[in-house]
Amino acid sequence: MIQFSINKTIFLQALNITKRAISHKNAIPVLSTVKIDVHKEGITLTGSNGQISIENFISVQDENAGLLISTTGSILLEAGFFINVVSSLPDLVLDFKEIEQKQVVLTSGKSEITLKGKEAEQYPRLQEVPTSSPLVLETKVLKQTINETAFAASTQESRPILTGVHFVLTENTALKTVATDSHRMSQRKLTLEKAGDNFDVVIPSRSLREFAAVFTDDIETVEVFFSNNQMLFRSEHISFYTRLLEGSYPDTDRLIPKEFNTIAIFDTANLRQAMERARLLSNATQNGTVKLEIVNQLVSAHVNSPEVGRVNEELDTLEVVGDDLVISFNPTYLIEALKAIDSDQVKVSFISPVRPFTLVPNNETNDLVQLITPVRTN
Amino acid sequence: MIQFSINKTIFLQALNITKRAISHKNAIPVLSTVKIDVHKEGITLTGSNGQISIENFISVQDENAGLLISTTGSILLEAGFFINVVSSLPDLVLDFKEIEQKQVVLTSGKSEITLKGKEAEQYPRLQEVPTSSPLVLETKVLKQTINETAFAASTQESRPILTGVHFVLTENTALKTVATDSHRMSQRKLTLEKAGDNFDVVIPSRSLREFAAVFTDDIETVEVFFSNNQMLFRSEHISFYTRLLEGSYPDTDRLIPKEFNTIAIFDTANLRQAMERARLLSNATQNGTVKLEIVNQLVSAHVNSPEVGRVNEELDTLEVVGDDLVISFNPTYLIEALKAIDSDQVKVSFISPVRPFTLVPNNETNDLVQLITPVRTN
Repeated sequence: MIQFSINKTIFLQALNITKRAISHKNAIPVLSTVKIDVHKEGITLTGSNGQISIENFISVQDENAGLLISTTGSILLEAGFFINVVSSLPDLVLDFKEIEQKQVVLTSGKSEITLKGKEAEQYPRLQEVPTSSPLVLETKVLKQTINETAFAASTQESRPILTGVHFVLTENTALKTVATDSHRMSQRKLTLEKAGDNFDVVIPSRSLREFAAVFTDDIETVEVFFSNNQMLFRSEHISFYTRLLEGSYPDTDRLIPKEFNTIAIFDTANLRQAMERARLLSNATQNGTVKLEIVNQLVSAHVNSPEVGRVNEELDTLEVVGDDLVISFNPTYLIEALKAIDSDQVKVSFISPVRPFTLVPNNETNDLVQLITPVRTN
Repeated sequence: MIQFSINKTIFLQALNITKRAISHKNAIPVLSTVKIDVHKEGITLTGSNGQISIENFISVQDENAGLLISTTGSILLEAGFFINVVSSLPDLVLDFKEIEQKQVVLTSGKSEITLKGKEAEQYPRLQEVPTSSPLVLETKVLKQTINETAFAASTQESRPILTGVHFVLTENTALKTVATDSHRMSQRKLTLEKAGDNFDVVIPSRSLREFAAVFTDDIETVEVFFSNNQMLFRSEHISFYTRLLEGSYPDTDRLIPKEFNTIAIFDTANLRQAMERARLLSNATQNGTVKLEIVNQLVSAHVNSPEVGRVNEELDTLEVVGDDLVISFNPTYLIEALKAIDSDQVKVSFISPVRPFTLVPNNETNDLVQLITPVRTN
């Protein structure tokens, strides 16, 4: 029967990371538990919601953890409850001891808490992902890519494939990442420093957001592995599994226009604030749009809600070239696109009032392009 | 038709204070608006939910406000929406101009937003409270008293009088404040520095919590006035009205025991943390209680949930005198009582397992006493 002692803070940190994969209300009751495997080398904490699974390893070598293992074994404990109990313990050190009937006694200071656990055999087996020939990615780069694209994925299950982000590696170093909900699209291209085997997968955007929360900035690189329908991100202590979306992702390359009739360069923050004002009133209109007018190189934004009122705003620009234009669109799409642009200036390029327009950072060193479809108004 | 210009930040601060009285979903639609009265001396903003009303005055004398009034008048604007619009404006200064049909044009920088308002005559008249012979209270003292008592008021409407806090002034300077939900009670007595007319009122605890949020610590004193069923707290710029609860408050003095059989002194923070651990498990038991055992001057706490597990904890004490005792109670009542005690040590005094026990700060300079009723278990 398990027995170990550990630093409470380190144990709690590891539990909280694992908890990100655990849903309190899971259709499969055993998935609301955390699995604790105690072996000679350390402790592995496992959590899963069926979509993503996280394994977190605390090594006996880790001096901060102060991990002393007397007896090994495995057990399941109700995750949310167990974490609350551990975080409430009075002392810096906690003793964990399994007693009869799968019960666990936690002792810390003068406090002694006994919890009922479950047989570890009840826990489902995680699907295995072969770990040969890893692709090594910088965590920072991967997280920025997620930040730039995942928001544009669909949140509706009507076309499940669009709830994912399309990751494609070609020529061993050319990574393309793209997400679209069919109203807007965001695509980031980049060249990897280290070559890897080509792949073409669609990763659920929700999994990517959890990935970004679990892999903190102190983890410099992650190894990436694929199986048919699973993917594994692995760092020294954390293994993060996510299922992949099945089906073929639509061809998005053909959507990106190359030639434009009107181009305007804005200060990114100014344009975003103007759209946030416009949105306050466009939310109260029937089609929820803002109208952008470009006349004689002057750009203005207009919303007219018969119920609430009107916005009329002259927008500062750094440069405007090309034809006059009047175009209507959902300001939320523009606001979210601008949030993902890490550049002081943004270049917005239009073809016509009925064709999608593009946004690119004006200091374009990399290759980020966003697309927004206008709304036809009469 | 109204016209003025004002510093956006100061205007927004005043609007946000007024908004605390405004409920978005009010049965009386006009109460979701803020009333803006512009007169020669400044602007009065009024908000009300029928229970509390707040008037906030911005003076033309206030240099920070930069208030320039061209034309006076009154108008109603949808509060939540108007505040969002003001907070989104680009420039430090905003121009407010009424145009035809009760519309308002806000201009700030290059942004121009037109909002639809309503006729000020639609706004209900606030009940008047005569403002002669004020009682002057230190804001800090009043807020501390609220903090020490209001939490113990009932949240159930079954006995409406218990949802209030009983404030009684006798002998012109002896203030007693008490709240109870019939399971626990908290009473603070204090002597006022400045004498006032005696009173005996029951103030809704919800109003008192709003009072504490509206009157920030930089407001040193407030004047207090009463009418039959209303009360007014007034500072230089803010008038805060609340209705009073009708009916007579139960006699609570007779509830407070004077003689005890067991007394224990605890470190306040230690006891609270132990009760928080106990609560994690007591929440999963049938009667939600923790059992406190005092045997040979040793105090221990116990919870046994057949479903989840057990807590056994030895509690540190500074002193224990009197008889042995076993008593059960809801740990939440003790946690909330301890939160309201601003003292490192707390004295807990018991009569028997079936009689209420008291808590007082162990450095008793003032006169705070809390009462908790035990739960009978067999």
